Amino acid sequence: MDIMEQVTAGEVKRKGKAAKAASLKMVNLSTAEKNKGLELIAEQLLAQQALILTENAKDLQLGKENGLSDAVLDRIMLNEKRINDMAHAVRLLTELQDPIGETLETIQKDNGLSIQKKRVPIGVIGMVYEARPNVTIDAATLSLKTGNAVILRGSSSAKYSNMALVKIIHQALDKSSIPADGVQLIEDMSRETARELFRLNEYLDVLIPRGGKNLIETVIRESTVPVIETGAGNCHIYIDEHADKTMAEKIVLNAKLQRPSVCNAAESILIHEHWLRQNGKGILEKLAEQQVEIYGDEQVCSSFPSAKRATEEDWAAEYLGLQVSVKTVQSVDEAIAHINTYGTKHSEAIVTSNEANAEKFLSSVDASAVYHNASTRFTDGFEFGYGAEIGISTQKLHARGPMGLKALTSSKFYVYGDGQIRE
Amino acid sequence: MDIMEQVTAGEVKRKGKAAKAASLKMVNLSTAEKNKGLELIAEQLLAQQALILTENAKDLQLGKENGLSDAVLDRIMLNEKRINDMAHAVRLLTELQDPIGETLETIQKDNGLSIQKKRVPIGVIGMVYEARPNVTIDAATLSLKTGNAVILRGSSSAKYSNMALVKIIHQALDKSSIPADGVQLIEDMSRETARELFRLNEYLDVLIPRGGKNLIETVIRESTVPVIETGAGNCHIYIDEHADKTMAEKIVLNAKLQRPSVCNAAESILIHEHWLRQNGKGILEKLAEQQVEIYGDEQVCSSFPSAKRATEEDWAAEYLGLQVSVKTVQSVDEAIAHINTYGTKHSEAIVTSNEANAEKFLSSVDASAVYHNASTRFTDGFEFGYGAEIGISTQKLHARGPMGLKALTSSKFYVYGDGQIRE
Repeated sequence: MDIMEQVTAGEVKRKGKAAKAASLKMVNLSTAEKNKGLELIAEQLLAQQALILTENAKDLQLGKENGLSDAVLDRIMLNEKRINDMAHAVRLLTELQDPIGETLETIQKDNGLSIQKKRVPIGVIGMVYEARPNVTIDAATLSLKTGNAVILRGSSSAKYSNMALVKIIHQALDKSSIPADGVQLIEDMSRETARELFRLNEYLDVLIPRGGKNLIETVIRESTVPVIETGAGNCHIYIDEHADKTMAEKIVLNAKLQRPSVCNAAESILIHEHWLRQNGKGILEKLAEQQVEIYGDEQVCSSFPSAKRATEEDWAAEYLGLQVSVKTVQSVDEAIAHINTYGTKHSEAIVTSNEANAEKFLSSVDASAVYHNASTRFTDGFEFGYGAEIGISTQKLHARGPMGLKALTSSKFYVYGDGQIRE
Repeated sequence: MDIMEQVTAGEVKRKGKAAKAASLKMVNLSTAEKNKGLELIAEQLLAQQALILTENAKDLQLGKENGLSDAVLDRIMLNEKRINDMAHAVRLLTELQDPIGETLETIQKDNGLSIQKKRVPIGVIGMVYEARPNVTIDAATLSLKTGNAVILRGSSSAKYSNMALVKIIHQALDKSSIPADGVQLIEDMSRETARELFRLNEYLDVLIPRGGKNLIETVIRESTVPVIETGAGNCHIYIDEHADKTMAEKIVLNAKLQRPSVCNAAESILIHEHWLRQNGKGILEKLAEQQVEIYGDEQVCSSFPSAKRATEEDWAAEYLGLQVSVKTVQSVDEAIAHINTYGTKHSEAIVTSNEANAEKFLSSVDASAVYHNASTRFTDGFEFGYGAEIGISTQKLHARGPMGLKALTSSKFYVYGDGQIRE
């Protein structure tokens, strides 16, 4: 290990240890104490706009020098409105119910033992994320609301913004009962600190990556700390033989076009061959009118000649833009099999008036959210009424689908006796 | 990759793919269909005792030739009673409530969308375990009861027994509606197959290791598949200043001695210095009378000279035998800090009549189960009334503490609309 690596090792371990120590105190914070800390953070964000904008300008300047695209620069960019939005989101969090302390199960044993399973904080949460500096505030305040300490590792392209935001959080927490050590930012952006964070099992209870496919795959591949996989959405709309034409078109256009860059947007349309023959042209024309490039199978291309032929890659693609793959199927079973082969277990919809086909689709498609006659765009913590969202889990363990505050909690058995021993 | 490795690679991928395909069918099995399959397994276990005993004898013979200890040979050994017990456990499973299909949450949106969060199988579960062949039956039947496919990788020392048991399971399932492919056994016991299983993210949803510390650490270090950590228990009993003498002795002796080889047995006793001065000698003598070796700090050793001095390793040790570490503390806070430093987050107890100290201990100690005035030996799926146990989770995600059937489930959002789109 050379000297630079030793310095590096120092930061992650030191901050991990401090976060762990803070988390052990944070389990006993009251809801009022946590909300007070959040309110102070919101106030400081508004009071220190000038500092935030100055530091953000440094990131933007460096980003331009490094040739970042306008889209990425826009994600990094903060302005008065965006800072106000961040502060507003923090204040909304104070109004949400505190999940900590909830009794999840009560077991009364014949021997007099009383067992209560209660909701508790997870401990220390690691967040690894890309460009947007507002994730720094989001992740920190959602963690604090649920009594968790957090270690943040943002993008190097938002380094100055993130440092300013965490400085503001620390100043706010210093006036509260929440230990400021409960929020840690990794400032050394080398690969070594990332690798160390991925293997910080001694102090970290979970890692949540938020960002593109590469980031998420790297975290899954390299982590020994448990990971909650968030993410990729190759979402399908299956238009059944028994689908209403108007409803199918409305749902497909919404799922594809309302916000094409997000994970719950549709990337692939499956159409029953009968429906395609009768109604297919209309929907394909409407997509094309909106500048959507269509990648179709043979039948689609022959009924709509301006479509290009889809390759194997298209069936698996998460375009996140104005492209869509379109495939003909002969039955709901073929649609289910296709989705279970190419889908990413995010959000999948069927449009049909046939209840049996709907039921089969919903129970057989393996995804975090399955829809009957509605757009996949609703898979979202706010739309589901959770009032917050730390990400959308596409894995099966711990949390699946939109993750609200409860996804940042664990449980603990409290056992009360008066001298019971096991016979 | 040489030819043997290619064959090896073939087995894990092929069985993983088959298990995944089976799991997609298994989500639609009814409770009656699953119970019928379990009943057939129980019947076949009893009907084919001769086969099981013949194959088990091969493992025992090889084990003797390989110089396995009597303790390990006893774990591998099956006899008529043990086979009857396995069949009985499978029949008990049929009586347990099926958790699949339970509605966990209902959300009614103003736009008419109806969202139901329902309990579903996880998908494909990987079990990696040591010696005991009964885990083969346990893991397979708990997985089937919850609609999951399972890939089993037992110990090479029980290879013939495991192959016989899985053959019997397959014969039983062939007469049921459960696809026999839902239970897969890895037969090639090389390191390569283990490594492949740890990275089988394409087909595996979770890995559960059951066994010693080395096995669990290897699985955590090498897996990219999500792992549920089970296991190690360095459990403490803290005897507070305000502890009843008789109760403290009864609990300590039970937690240490009722079954010293298991994870919820006590390994370390923390004693408040006032209590030690007044009552300590009695308890230390009683432990010594039962052949327990005592590793104490300076105060303990001076009040009980036959104790040996504890080292740093003793505070962290999971002895699983007739040894105990004993430390003097000056306060409940010191006890909490010691446990949060050396504990394994399994089961921790306080003996006291002081409610404030009890409350502080229970809320501040970071463990899956915390006890007030009771033995740690109760941390167990059967004792908690779950009727089954796949292991005891010592991590914070997904499941914590004894894992019953519900720990083998995930959830899925069913969203019902009539054409809703996002505005």
